[in-house]
Amino acid sequence: MTSPHRIPAERLRGFIAEAFEAVDIPPDDAGTIADLMTRIDLRGLDGHGIFRLPPSIKRIKAGGINVNPALKIVRETASTALIDGDNGVGHLAVNEAARVAMDKAGQNGVAWVGTTNCNHAGAGSIYAMMPMERDMIGLYMAVGSANHLPPWGGIEMLLSTNPLACAIPGLEEPPIVLDMATTVASYGKVKIAADRGQTMPEGWMIDPQGNPLTDPTRSDDGFLLPIGGYKGYGLALIFGLLAGTLNGAAMGKDVIDFNKDFTSTTNTGQLIIALDIKAFADVETFKRNVDGVIRAMKGSPTLPGVEEIFLPGEQSHAKWLERTRDGVPIPEALMARLVTLAAELKIDPLV
Amino acid sequence: MTSPHRIPAERLRGFIAEAFEAVDIPPDDAGTIADLMTRIDLRGLDGHGIFRLPPSIKRIKAGGINVNPALKIVRETASTALIDGDNGVGHLAVNEAARVAMDKAGQNGVAWVGTTNCNHAGAGSIYAMMPMERDMIGLYMAVGSANHLPPWGGIEMLLSTNPLACAIPGLEEPPIVLDMATTVASYGKVKIAADRGQTMPEGWMIDPQGNPLTDPTRSDDGFLLPIGGYKGYGLALIFGLLAGTLNGAAMGKDVIDFNKDFTSTTNTGQLIIALDIKAFADVETFKRNVDGVIRAMKGSPTLPGVEEIFLPGEQSHAKWLERTRDGVPIPEALMARLVTLAAELKIDPLV
Repeated sequence: MTSPHRIPAERLRGFIAEAFEAVDIPPDDAGTIADLMTRIDLRGLDGHGIFRLPPSIKRIKAGGINVNPALKIVRETASTALIDGDNGVGHLAVNEAARVAMDKAGQNGVAWVGTTNCNHAGAGSIYAMMPMERDMIGLYMAVGSANHLPPWGGIEMLLSTNPLACAIPGLEEPPIVLDMATTVASYGKVKIAADRGQTMPEGWMIDPQGNPLTDPTRSDDGFLLPIGGYKGYGLALIFGLLAGTLNGAAMGKDVIDFNKDFTSTTNTGQLIIALDIKAFADVETFKRNVDGVIRAMKGSPTLPGVEEIFLPGEQSHAKWLERTRDGVPIPEALMARLVTLAAELKIDPLV
Repeated sequence: MTSPHRIPAERLRGFIAEAFEAVDIPPDDAGTIADLMTRIDLRGLDGHGIFRLPPSIKRIKAGGINVNPALKIVRETASTALIDGDNGVGHLAVNEAARVAMDKAGQNGVAWVGTTNCNHAGAGSIYAMMPMERDMIGLYMAVGSANHLPPWGGIEMLLSTNPLACAIPGLEEPPIVLDMATTVASYGKVKIAADRGQTMPEGWMIDPQGNPLTDPTRSDDGFLLPIGGYKGYGLALIFGLLAGTLNGAAMGKDVIDFNKDFTSTTNTGQLIIALDIKAFADVETFKRNVDGVIRAMKGSPTLPGVEEIFLPGEQSHAKWLERTRDGVPIPEALMARLVTLAAELKIDPLV
């Protein structure tokens, strides 16, 4: 395996924007999406950034996404809003939801903003991190874009890996940024194991007889396991009801598999909570206390064989610094797909 | 083992109230605490109801709890508040936090209310369920009252089993009520296994060398494992920062073990979020859609050997119905402790 190409962030952003413009997304929107996708890649969340550009373009060309959505607040109170994404690229509505949440939290201490009629928006942590710009804490939940999880004890895949993200700023330390699916492994990890010819550890998937499934090429014959058994099932259910059902978005049986169906409206739902730190504490004191918690964890003794304790988001922060400096690595297989995409769209190739 | 005594809820409530009054808690407050503790027992959350009466009384007699707290809102915005519990019995401040959160959510769609200088308040689901009375969704997080969890890869117990509770109402179906610790097993389960001479399954605890610990009598030599490995560690950390650090309450190194230290101020923190359903959806439509999700889960096919799929809170709801009718079962060992307690406090015994 040769070492992957390294693409400077600015070039990645430019390529993504051009790709979206080539399928008639207005330049401003294309720029917003490109900026968010690039941020995702810079933080190392590789399954959610430019990796998803080819399938996004495929969905747009198939007519599954509205290229010129009119975002609209369809319900609103002083501290809440529901934003209709008009079936546009998901990043647009969730980005707007974060902005509205921050504005309302600035007025009232906290805000909860949901999306409906939206699409996959990439990694949740990008949105959960936005409120930190205004000394706020961010929380994000979403209904995943394909069902791979049955209810606990069941075999019908009625739930997605519904994720949670949360971002809490420190003062001198990097922020704590949790971004997790409610299953032991994401479906993306399964696909990567299949690509690499690897065996999966027991505990990732089981088959409909309840036996461990460790061959990732057989992933269609089984389903993912939730973290903590019935607990992860409960979390996936709750996050799905809050981000999906409450917003009038798809949940359970109604969820479209975005990797298999490129034309049906997904009606994806997400939610963002922004919480103003100063409503609860002196901002600097709070951040210093977060630093204290981080340092206590980092400085504590480890299990034999463990070199270092990490905080949630710490490794993504290190990737951010490294990739901002050295560029985003694009693996061979993805690069080949991007070459094909550029030719199809008649835009300049990435390199 | 003889079958446990069954105590009618009204008698349980009366006994608990008398016990608190006997240690100089004002009658109104004693009644509030007794009502909440009894609700916890009626829902089958046996480790958090009357089971905790003897240690609560012990802490009060040792001077570790303020019997006549003046609850005070110390910070407030339109949609947030921070309530100082004045080191009273925890149930009082969290009950008040839920009331304030519902009032504010009724005005502004959502509210987030934290507590500081509080104490253990029993099972979080009791508070998360309160907003349902006003067609709201409730969320609750707390810092647990003893550290049993190291950061992932570590061996120093810097985190508690920081729980999450969430209650979402259905129309005809019982509500979905999640109430979970972020560890695979709670410490209470370990103690019960020790009492019964049982072996713990692998995955509950490990020792400081990283080996599975399955002998519950050796629990002091090891620590609990988080759900989903680093994910459960991340959840425990986030919930602790939001319910503890942000509220100026104890978190990490500062957490007092309430089973070992009966005099130090615990400075426990909790938080309640109330979310008004009508800010996002027609209430009846939403509840009907929740019913639809519940029925899809219940009606889906099961793994071999699994008889029934349960929704979070469904079994607690069944216990609530059964115990409201037949009384709360009190096991022999707990009954003996309650007999001793009644004698000490010079109040009528439970039976």
